[in-house]
Amino acid sequence: MDYSVIKGIKSPEDVKKLNKKEIEALCDEARSVIIETVSKNGGHLASNLGAVELTVALHRSFSTPKDAIIFDVGHQSYTHKLLTGRFNEFSTLRTKGGISGFMRPDESEHDAFVTGHSSNSISAAYGIYKAKRISGEEGTAVAVIGDGALTGGMAYEALNNAGSARSNFIIVLNDNKMSISRNVGALARSLTKMRNKPKYHKFKNAFSNFLIDIPFIGKKINSFIFYLKEGIKNIVYRNNVFTAMGFNYLGPVDGHNVEEMETLFNIAKTYTRPSVVHIITTKGKGYEYAESSPKSYHGVAPFDIEKGASFGGKECFSDVAGETLCSLAEKDKKIVAITAAMTSGTGLSKFAHDYKQNFFDVGIAEQHAVTFAAGLAKGGLKPFFVVYSSFLQRGYDQLVHDVAIAGLPVKLLIDRAGIVGEDGESHQGVFDVSYLTGIPGINVYSPCNYNELKAMIEQTADNDEFAAIRYPRGAQPENCKFDYSGKDFDVFGGNSKKAIVTYGRLSSFALETKEKLKDINVIKLNKIYPLSDELISSLKKFDEIHFFEESVKSGGIAEHIAGKLYESGFNNKFKIHAISDTFIPHMSVSEALNENGLSTESMIEWLSK
Amino acid sequence: MDYSVIKGIKSPEDVKKLNKKEIEALCDEARSVIIETVSKNGGHLASNLGAVELTVALHRSFSTPKDAIIFDVGHQSYTHKLLTGRFNEFSTLRTKGGISGFMRPDESEHDAFVTGHSSNSISAAYGIYKAKRISGEEGTAVAVIGDGALTGGMAYEALNNAGSARSNFIIVLNDNKMSISRNVGALARSLTKMRNKPKYHKFKNAFSNFLIDIPFIGKKINSFIFYLKEGIKNIVYRNNVFTAMGFNYLGPVDGHNVEEMETLFNIAKTYTRPSVVHIITTKGKGYEYAESSPKSYHGVAPFDIEKGASFGGKECFSDVAGETLCSLAEKDKKIVAITAAMTSGTGLSKFAHDYKQNFFDVGIAEQHAVTFAAGLAKGGLKPFFVVYSSFLQRGYDQLVHDVAIAGLPVKLLIDRAGIVGEDGESHQGVFDVSYLTGIPGINVYSPCNYNELKAMIEQTADNDEFAAIRYPRGAQPENCKFDYSGKDFDVFGGNSKKAIVTYGRLSSFALETKEKLKDINVIKLNKIYPLSDELISSLKKFDEIHFFEESVKSGGIAEHIAGKLYESGFNNKFKIHAISDTFIPHMSVSEALNENGLSTESMIEWLSK
Repeated sequence: MDYSVIKGIKSPEDVKKLNKKEIEALCDEARSVIIETVSKNGGHLASNLGAVELTVALHRSFSTPKDAIIFDVGHQSYTHKLLTGRFNEFSTLRTKGGISGFMRPDESEHDAFVTGHSSNSISAAYGIYKAKRISGEEGTAVAVIGDGALTGGMAYEALNNAGSARSNFIIVLNDNKMSISRNVGALARSLTKMRNKPKYHKFKNAFSNFLIDIPFIGKKINSFIFYLKEGIKNIVYRNNVFTAMGFNYLGPVDGHNVEEMETLFNIAKTYTRPSVVHIITTKGKGYEYAESSPKSYHGVAPFDIEKGASFGGKECFSDVAGETLCSLAEKDKKIVAITAAMTSGTGLSKFAHDYKQNFFDVGIAEQHAVTFAAGLAKGGLKPFFVVYSSFLQRGYDQLVHDVAIAGLPVKLLIDRAGIVGEDGESHQGVFDVSYLTGIPGINVYSPCNYNELKAMIEQTADNDEFAAIRYPRGAQPENCKFDYSGKDFDVFGGNSKKAIVTYGRLSSFALETKEKLKDINVIKLNKIYPLSDELISSLKKFDEIHFFEESVKSGGIAEHIAGKLYESGFNNKFKIHAISDTFIPHMSVSEALNENGLSTESMIEWLSK
Repeated sequence: MDYSVIKGIKSPEDVKKLNKKEIEALCDEARSVIIETVSKNGGHLASNLGAVELTVALHRSFSTPKDAIIFDVGHQSYTHKLLTGRFNEFSTLRTKGGISGFMRPDESEHDAFVTGHSSNSISAAYGIYKAKRISGEEGTAVAVIGDGALTGGMAYEALNNAGSARSNFIIVLNDNKMSISRNVGALARSLTKMRNKPKYHKFKNAFSNFLIDIPFIGKKINSFIFYLKEGIKNIVYRNNVFTAMGFNYLGPVDGHNVEEMETLFNIAKTYTRPSVVHIITTKGKGYEYAESSPKSYHGVAPFDIEKGASFGGKECFSDVAGETLCSLAEKDKKIVAITAAMTSGTGLSKFAHDYKQNFFDVGIAEQHAVTFAAGLAKGGLKPFFVVYSSFLQRGYDQLVHDVAIAGLPVKLLIDRAGIVGEDGESHQGVFDVSYLTGIPGINVYSPCNYNELKAMIEQTADNDEFAAIRYPRGAQPENCKFDYSGKDFDVFGGNSKKAIVTYGRLSSFALETKEKLKDINVIKLNKIYPLSDELISSLKKFDEIHFFEESVKSGGIAEHIAGKLYESGFNNKFKIHAISDTFIPHMSVSEALNENGLSTESMIEWLSK
């Protein structure tokens, strides 16, 4: 493909000048760039392929940055990046210093808001919209949200607020009939009904287009005709959650038909009430492998375009977590697992299949997930909420209020804890240590390898503690395959008075350092919180302690220890090596660890001084 | 009143034995006890008076603890406490060692779950319900939720999950036509429609009761008749958010008619789908003052029953925050204020009235509030989100993801920071220092008095920082009326090498201590995070530092300083006095400060050693 059309798009205004044939070519080219780039760099594939025409239609109907378009989660914003002056840099996607896989305002004025976490787009867009009205500025704001993201309570809070506005604020519901995982819940059922009864609306394009081509007047007449059609259609669709929340409801239309979408967007702009425009898209559209298996192609590692991606492959912490829960559930029917729309990502596919009654996918609903788990625990079950570290941030209050105050024995399996790599700022799991250890009564564990993860899950399953077990994305370190000692911490003693203290994945670097420097001591924490008196006593005998942790420094384990060391009278050197209160952008895990002084090299350097 | 009926209620089973006349007497007596006790101890009044008949009907239709009844927020659970064996202790309400003002499982087996924060009841109840089904246990679970609490996204996440169940899980919507503050948003409008069109359903009681009195058969026939009625009514009401979410919708009925409610509850029990039973209650019912001014009587201090409560009275931090925002808005139309259904509690009533266009009550929706504020900031305005410390926990992820990553200049005015007193565990504002200071880029301020609060708000309003200003509940300390120095910290020097370091309200205790002990040094932090190098240098010269803070120790400022002090080579005594990772139950603020070693007496004791 020669990319002749897409190369000519220097700004979104150029998209507006294209004719029908050029639009088709642009969509084909965008798809091709996306497939090619993701096949090399990895990234989100199916969601981006589904949103190509939608993005083109949006940039024809609206004008960024005057109008703010916010793609919820942002994992479907690649076409948007290609149309807003980033075609030439697009090959750097998700690499260090390159284009982010999500929307980043510091990357382009066309990226109106940070995205990455689900369900925030309506809140942000409505804020921008109201700011424009209060400041008397031109332009509008559009939130583009998927059916998955709409299961998040935050989206509903925003609908409730925005639905009462007297304004033409616009929400585009990109309904691809599934979120990341199978989209369960009442909303999904409701959308299915809206989608299927009757078979969704087909435009009489020839007629519409003829009218629309008459400038100004044309659009108005077309809108009027549409109003009439809508009047009838609204009877059919009036009973839905959006109309109940005060929105005009337009659609559903084919989300791969640019003209149909443009027409609806232009109509929504003329309203004096907020609208929901419902479009139906196909995840993975245009790449056969992805279209037939959209779930697998949601996020992918580099792959061969001709052969498709290969899945399965190398074992990772998530797999071990899932397998361990299966083996526990086999023996104990009180074991239940909860996911917030991340069945596959958290390794729970087998559990979901084999222990259906004991498995709950609650949607992208971390707040509910935590308290629902607390309710299950209160009812005598043994709930495990398996969740990515950065997404659990949504459930912080519920951990404090609904789990900890009553001391309910909920277990958190926290996946993607620590640095996650190419997804960047929004997905880094570097806050959980800090926010979890402030919660009274919690026990936090940090395995270094699969054996430890398995043993820790088994150990906590049978007791009454409120426990969090946090483990990194991906595979265990190569040199770290020992068994779990069962102790709060392990000592790898040496002859010097210098010690490295660390936990989790970094333990393997510490042991490498010890292999090299011999004499140093390594203290590997297994239960990282609360800290035992025994640990503090053990540390007191060293002259120089270096604490390495893959967490923000502020509120991390090292600071907790510093407080206790002063209390114990320790008056020697204690140096913290952690992430210095900054957000880590997209780059590989090892690049990020290196940059933050959390590598074997850094340990060797500090301990050799 | 001789309380002859209520004294005879030893357990909820006794409520089931009462005849109509006794039920009426019971309700009167419960109201009287509540008014009398709250007039002495303070507490939630209007919400409890509105829920008397509802609670009686619930305990006649369901059997706790076999059935779990969860009163959302729990500020309407006083009658429940009176009917579940706590009548004799009820005079100890909200006092140290006495009855909590919210549901507390450690207080009674009839309190199924911790309450205090809004909108968690459906999640918890559904968890308990599913646990019963999985374990094969008897009983059901009922969530009782107000129209205010229903604006919280968490409730929607739970509705989405529970709505897809094939079960008779029951939600009671206690619609009192307002939440704590004026209930805004699309949902409120939707409920108003449901309530008014047509005038809500009146039972033909005589007939219903006759049938119901025939055991077993009676209830079935009655249910059948009801089905017929519902069949018609459902046409009228079918377009509402609950039916769209998959629930049977029953109601609305009079929430002060025990029999009508019992009938609906009994019908809902027979369904094989989840139900929402909509009842209409009057806040403050039965106490004239509260009924005519329910907002003022939501939470009250002790008052004279005959004369009613007196409001206004002593100035507090909230008033100063509200006044300062008004004076800023007078000059700058970019100033906007956001509340999550706490207009009055956060001192924003005047702002809401005078600067209507710049004021947003978003409902009990802290997640949305934070990101909406971020959107407003992105759009060039100067948003202040005014919120209670413990409720801001709900917005933690949004602070990280939507505000901090892009560094948007959102300002948080955090009311009720620190110990709050009689509301107890769920309302203590002792976590914000810990969870906020882990967020990269945030600046946290802690005024000791009104002058400082005002100056800090003014200072941050005009700059680009992401700032949080946290201040305690109630009035400023008497002896602490100086002006703001504008510096990050103030030094009150002495001749000794001992120092107290502290911030916020405790500064007044430190200054009292210095008045008594003369020679000691007091370092009063104004900007408590990030910590300046200058502060660390200043601290290094002391031999003995005592850090006092009204926060959990884990992740507090003292630990941050400990880390930096080791880095600086400080090898003297550093002792932390903070809240030791525990939940503080209801008692007065001064009792709680004393118990946690955060009093002038404690400071004098430690500094005299």
